[in-house]
Amino acid sequence: MAALMGQMMQMPLMISSLIVHAARHFGDTEIVSKRAEGDLHRTDWTQTELRARKLAQAFERLGCRAGDRVATLAWNGYRHVEIYYGASGSQLVCHTINPRLFPEQIAWIANDAADQVLCFDLTFLPLIEKLAPQLKSVRHFVLMTDRARMPAQTGIAGLLCYEELIDAENGQYAWPEFDENTASSICYTSGTTGHPKGAVYSHRSTLLHAYASALPDALDCSAKDVILPVVPMFHVNAWGLPYAVPLVGAKLVMPGPHLDGKSLYELFESEKVTFSAGVPTVWLGLINHVQQNKLKFSTFKRTVIGGSACPPAMMRTLEDDFGVEVIHAWGMTEMSPIGTLSKLKAKHEALDPEARHRLLEKQGHVVYGVDMMILDDDEKPLPWDGKAAGNLVVRGPWVIERYFQVEKSPLVTVDGRQWFPTGDVATIDEDGFMQITDRSKDVIKSGGEWISSIDLENIAMAHPAVHEAAAIACRHPKWDERPLLVVVKKPNAEATAADILGFFEGRLAKWQIPDDVLFVAELPHTATGKIQKLKLREQFKDHRLPTA
Amino acid sequence: MAALMGQMMQMPLMISSLIVHAARHFGDTEIVSKRAEGDLHRTDWTQTELRARKLAQAFERLGCRAGDRVATLAWNGYRHVEIYYGASGSQLVCHTINPRLFPEQIAWIANDAADQVLCFDLTFLPLIEKLAPQLKSVRHFVLMTDRARMPAQTGIAGLLCYEELIDAENGQYAWPEFDENTASSICYTSGTTGHPKGAVYSHRSTLLHAYASALPDALDCSAKDVILPVVPMFHVNAWGLPYAVPLVGAKLVMPGPHLDGKSLYELFESEKVTFSAGVPTVWLGLINHVQQNKLKFSTFKRTVIGGSACPPAMMRTLEDDFGVEVIHAWGMTEMSPIGTLSKLKAKHEALDPEARHRLLEKQGHVVYGVDMMILDDDEKPLPWDGKAAGNLVVRGPWVIERYFQVEKSPLVTVDGRQWFPTGDVATIDEDGFMQITDRSKDVIKSGGEWISSIDLENIAMAHPAVHEAAAIACRHPKWDERPLLVVVKKPNAEATAADILGFFEGRLAKWQIPDDVLFVAELPHTATGKIQKLKLREQFKDHRLPTA
Repeated sequence: MAALMGQMMQMPLMISSLIVHAARHFGDTEIVSKRAEGDLHRTDWTQTELRARKLAQAFERLGCRAGDRVATLAWNGYRHVEIYYGASGSQLVCHTINPRLFPEQIAWIANDAADQVLCFDLTFLPLIEKLAPQLKSVRHFVLMTDRARMPAQTGIAGLLCYEELIDAENGQYAWPEFDENTASSICYTSGTTGHPKGAVYSHRSTLLHAYASALPDALDCSAKDVILPVVPMFHVNAWGLPYAVPLVGAKLVMPGPHLDGKSLYELFESEKVTFSAGVPTVWLGLINHVQQNKLKFSTFKRTVIGGSACPPAMMRTLEDDFGVEVIHAWGMTEMSPIGTLSKLKAKHEALDPEARHRLLEKQGHVVYGVDMMILDDDEKPLPWDGKAAGNLVVRGPWVIERYFQVEKSPLVTVDGRQWFPTGDVATIDEDGFMQITDRSKDVIKSGGEWISSIDLENIAMAHPAVHEAAAIACRHPKWDERPLLVVVKKPNAEATAADILGFFEGRLAKWQIPDDVLFVAELPHTATGKIQKLKLREQFKDHRLPTA
Repeated sequence: MAALMGQMMQMPLMISSLIVHAARHFGDTEIVSKRAEGDLHRTDWTQTELRARKLAQAFERLGCRAGDRVATLAWNGYRHVEIYYGASGSQLVCHTINPRLFPEQIAWIANDAADQVLCFDLTFLPLIEKLAPQLKSVRHFVLMTDRARMPAQTGIAGLLCYEELIDAENGQYAWPEFDENTASSICYTSGTTGHPKGAVYSHRSTLLHAYASALPDALDCSAKDVILPVVPMFHVNAWGLPYAVPLVGAKLVMPGPHLDGKSLYELFESEKVTFSAGVPTVWLGLINHVQQNKLKFSTFKRTVIGGSACPPAMMRTLEDDFGVEVIHAWGMTEMSPIGTLSKLKAKHEALDPEARHRLLEKQGHVVYGVDMMILDDDEKPLPWDGKAAGNLVVRGPWVIERYFQVEKSPLVTVDGRQWFPTGDVATIDEDGFMQITDRSKDVIKSGGEWISSIDLENIAMAHPAVHEAAAIACRHPKWDERPLLVVVKKPNAEATAADILGFFEGRLAKWQIPDDVLFVAELPHTATGKIQKLKLREQFKDHRLPTA
């Protein structure tokens, strides 16, 4: 006998339905943006949905077809939101590119994704003018501004004006329905080895993540909130907030390129922001500004901090001095990104403040949808005792199955199920609270951005005087970590630290270049010839960087 | 070119994954149940998941196969939760039957659903002994108790003992994965005409509803909460709480058959309940008990009230006197059930308390997933102005497409999309706040104008002498219909018809005020606690109004 089927309405989970929902039920709720142009712009969900429809028409008129990639190089703002929906909603794929990458990386990523349209903020005009010849697949360059601000002269042939594209359309467009497993967006992550790799999200994965992310024990988003994502929209879709905010009908405040403490504080106050999200380093500037000017937050109540471990001292300052609840979160590009959040259970209500603090400094428990385990090096599950540290693996409907255009599956099979190896090392306690103890062995996390140690080593190894090199993370008071390069010179070769560092210039973005170089006689190796980084980190943990 | 597909893990949305999640990440969080046996029972999510697996094994051993229906006649308790998961999780269909229905209706429903197993609490042993011969499809009767409490003698041939079934299994059972659109459970709704009709939920619809129901602007469920569903598990799956609670890892408190004010109050206090949910009538008993004994709630902070319109007077008492936030909700069996909830937007923060109260007395805005419209009698959409009242239609992935074994589709097509007609009459204001003005069949049509029976009842309920009130249409020679109010007075309260009618003056237009008031000892209720207006209209159809 065949199983009985449910008899509920069949409706695919479509990203367009989020903005339609916001426009229909929260139409006059505002979206306020600090623009790259410098001014403050106000719109609402009704207008944004209409403009997203016009944008979908414009993409169609430009010849875009289902599956085509629309890339963005843009700050957080209403136009970027329109592109998210206009592209994904019309079955195109929104590809957000991190403008902080080195130009060659940007070109490599755009070519790998075969982007056909590239939309960019005014800020990035000089960059794109330089890069355009290398962007082989891009047929249309769209400057995200109005006619008045378009450059009189540009090397970009046929440069299009975003506002003109919108104005040419009538908005008479019905959002299509299609397979919910269709790709909606791509985000590249710079892994530890080789080229960046793309995570390809689907409508289904994005909507399930959006539901989960808005839950009380996740980002806790409500129509009562005024939400300012400091985390950029090119950084794993601003942790999903451009989806969660219309889902709940909240007011959205976008900071554009203005992420300094003063600009953020003024925007928090003038727009009555209640909730924010960002990497630890961005809060340093805000905290300094507020402390130095003896200010207070009037409405700011909660913030999610993730991207890299939040220093306990920062959590205490925000909570004890400013009355801002810090939600410590952990996730990855490969996880859309939300995995765990530090939120208490009913049984923890009785804890004293110090014990609560210590618990909340962990990365927390999973949100429903994600499951996790820690494994030893033989891929055997380790106990959840808060002590055993192992390789963290995860699974869930918003975790990638594979990377874009990479044949080899990244997954491991344990107990008959497939898991994604995060590359992080963690403990999990009896209550399911996970704590990252060792980041992935090689990656250096500088101010929330990852620097690939392999990239650094590959460049160093290209220097004629270098025999072997290892890049390791070195503690830094401001950036959390900065790269330190440990070098074995070739016999009889001569080179100074400055020589080696100079060699990096033009080969990597400035912020990715190591802060210091140390010369040693030899590097420790494993039996199979790999450099023992753990040992190196141990050896140089007290090295004082010249930048510290 | 084919559209690009997402590259995320493919995992069907399975109900079993909820309890696996709770067991893995919230294993020692408690489930506390007042049992039909009379005592208080404590277990946790780990034990419950294990016992649900054993139950799945037991169903298999009994010969159940995919799609078979497992019926329950049971109160809210841990065993009922185990059956929800043991049945649905193993691809059987959990069919909750309302024991308050008339025995012939129960038999009709069980036969219509072709239930093959029937699990029931001790309370219902006499009922089932009487009904068993009529339950043609049931092959196994399972008494939800242990061996010691099994009856020495019973007319039910081969009556099985629930605890024995569990104890016979080893729990070595892997939850299967299958099509997420497979039926998970059935709930019958007693229509006003003809036989009850079944809504067949799927794993997908149940999980999407579970995510949505736990959102901050819905039931706002967190791992910090202690949740007591007063709404029965046979009443649209206790509004989804048996799914939402393990999703967030909260503590669950189950009242069993003990729904009187004293029992509930004691359970709220002893288990530190923070959140509850139920129909308006159940709160009457609790409020009376607390008021009469001058008690206070120590931990109870929020409650959802739905099922029928919550009288404003009750909302004010709970909020102003007891400090309990009331979330006014609206839904239907056909909607899993959640449709709208009364939760404020950021723009409403500035409202004065009186305006906030009036807004929160509406049924509120939709939760993402559901969309709604109001239509005139020609199925043309009506404006959202808070004044135009029309037939409310809805759509969403947890709204039924059709009824079980009923050929004719209930849906209407408007603007090319299919909508489910709710049978409710409502207004929607500019902010998307919906307010039910009536059931379409309860509307009182006086001289071509519509009078809302709910408005009349809400005013009557605010009178200090009124315990419960129902407004019904009464034949009138000139106006066709005029309102008649039927009232149950509070114990020892004194009031005349003139007193009650005088109370309406200034609160409603003169022509909307009832023509007469009748006092009765009690009102007839449906099995789900709603006033049986059809019965009342039948009873009083020949009542001669003083105005006639």
